[in-house]
Amino acid sequence: MSTKKNAEARDRESSWTTAPGIALQIRAGFQIASVATGSTPGWHGDKKAGKAAMKERGKLLAELQERLYAEARQGGERRVLLIVQGMDTAGKGGICRHVLGMVDPQGVHLRSFGVPTAEELSHDFLWRIRRALPPAGMIGVFDRSHYEDVLVGKVDELATPAEIEERYEKINEFERELVDAGYTLVKVALLIGYEEQGFRLLRRLARRDKHWKYSPSDVAARAQWPAYMDAYQAMFERTSTEYAPWYAVPADRKWFARLAVTELLAQALARLAPRWPEVRWDPRTQAAQVLATMPRHTAQLSVEELRAEAEDVAAESEDYRNGVEKLITQDARKDAGERVGNGQ
Amino acid sequence: MSTKKNAEARDRESSWTTAPGIALQIRAGFQIASVATGSTPGWHGDKKAGKAAMKERGKLLAELQERLYAEARQGGERRVLLIVQGMDTAGKGGICRHVLGMVDPQGVHLRSFGVPTAEELSHDFLWRIRRALPPAGMIGVFDRSHYEDVLVGKVDELATPAEIEERYEKINEFERELVDAGYTLVKVALLIGYEEQGFRLLRRLARRDKHWKYSPSDVAARAQWPAYMDAYQAMFERTSTEYAPWYAVPADRKWFARLAVTELLAQALARLAPRWPEVRWDPRTQAAQVLATMPRHTAQLSVEELRAEAEDVAAESEDYRNGVEKLITQDARKDAGERVGNGQ
Repeated sequence: MSTKKNAEARDRESSWTTAPGIALQIRAGFQIASVATGSTPGWHGDKKAGKAAMKERGKLLAELQERLYAEARQGGERRVLLIVQGMDTAGKGGICRHVLGMVDPQGVHLRSFGVPTAEELSHDFLWRIRRALPPAGMIGVFDRSHYEDVLVGKVDELATPAEIEERYEKINEFERELVDAGYTLVKVALLIGYEEQGFRLLRRLARRDKHWKYSPSDVAARAQWPAYMDAYQAMFERTSTEYAPWYAVPADRKWFARLAVTELLAQALARLAPRWPEVRWDPRTQAAQVLATMPRHTAQLSVEELRAEAEDVAAESEDYRNGVEKLITQDARKDAGERVGNGQ
Repeated sequence: MSTKKNAEARDRESSWTTAPGIALQIRAGFQIASVATGSTPGWHGDKKAGKAAMKERGKLLAELQERLYAEARQGGERRVLLIVQGMDTAGKGGICRHVLGMVDPQGVHLRSFGVPTAEELSHDFLWRIRRALPPAGMIGVFDRSHYEDVLVGKVDELATPAEIEERYEKINEFERELVDAGYTLVKVALLIGYEEQGFRLLRRLARRDKHWKYSPSDVAARAQWPAYMDAYQAMFERTSTEYAPWYAVPADRKWFARLAVTELLAQALARLAPRWPEVRWDPRTQAAQVLATMPRHTAQLSVEELRAEAEDVAAESEDYRNGVEKLITQDARKDAGERVGNGQ
């Protein structure tokens, strides 16, 4: 990357004055009613700068993902699980498409959860979730999740209040277990405003190519908006833990929600600092064996080429290390005091 | 899309003089030894034009995928399964990353098959394959597949010759069954040259960040190159059927292989011509219900906005129809007589 491009990239990054990991994390005293869903906490650039910053970060995210994947090939057990919740039209699908679309599809394990089937209902609510967990080395993505069972489950009284209480506990135990097994959880709630949802539903209804995303039950859920907000508030209070915190992402501006989730994911992976695995064989011995199968003149040629390429990679790798180090030590610590849910 | 851009797109597309569906399809008399692995059958543009054409086609592919997905939401049973085979380093992973990376990850069901586990070995060879089939509406991708059982299975004599013979039959029956159930199969063999593989293995060995992709068994497989070519030839002869033909894709030039697979996939989806599903509710009634929840002034505002947007979509939809129609009626029929495997 040229010095000019580096400088441009730095400028874009600097539009975060508070890292989203800090600005958006739910803490004691958080009130969902205080979230300005059209705000961009921590970010002080415009939409164009936001899109550019996201694309830039996407490259690092893609390399981090590849390293995590490679690590698992040698027995690594670590993995990341992104959990996305939000009301209808909040942009869950857009996160899957635009954020996860930046990394190799081979490294993404995406599952979405609808209304439980008869078989699923015959088991504990975590049964279908356990079956959908990502293998080691993957970025798992849950489009809706076990949290539906304390959201629609609570609002529509699909379980008794005592059962809902018990579920919060079970969820916390379950997530503790995952974290102990090598998971990093990134729990994201996309928060849109009531009016914005109205616009988005109307847009779906006006566009023939969006009708399939709409269901008449969406209006019924909308009618219970205050009950849903209460259920989200309770969910945050009961399940935002130190080992698996919730992030509240104002989502009226789709570009901001996607940018924020990209940054949260990149920071989660950067903290793992996955490394290319050590191999159990000697590259020089192997190369000699391959060279023995090549005609003499092409062998000479290729060795020269490869030497140059290996040097490029070494340099790149330094860029990568610096990128990750900066992400962890500086970017993730930026803090100008902004906090979601204090009217911001 | 502006008229100028349309014209540019047409220019790029016109670099196909024979559609890959015709140029690359394996027919009676095909000889793997006659494939020029560095050639670009049917394509007469350079790398830059190839990348641009791929990107352009990727947009149509993405929309086709979304429609197929939507169709399944209303009970559609159709799906596409891309099967990718090739020697080590042939670029299977690159297809997954760069071709499938152009469509929504929510619509891609990717599975890769390694050395069978003990459990898998205790079942018929198609057992693990059946478990990995994509749900309706998805683009399934198999990175390696049941064909490993007649490739490495044959070369390493993991089964008797009689068993291998039987497997060809079982595969044909299995694929017939899939096609009858609504699958479109796109079977792609990435063919690289022996020398090119040598270079690519050396590159992996020279680069620390590629070591994880290498295995000492790769050299052992390379030593059996002629036996593998025989196994591919037999596989083509026995399993390239009218309902599920094989495509031989010269793969020394990665950009060409990716472009060709993009085009093959887009043509497969375009032939399905998936349509936005008819819904079972009345959009106007639903919209009235949503509007009743909005403040009067925003409601007025949104109706105006939406009317304009709905018109845009209608126009777009015409572009789409024209694109698909052209793809099926013209692009997929281009034939200047080029055929893979006749030295081309």
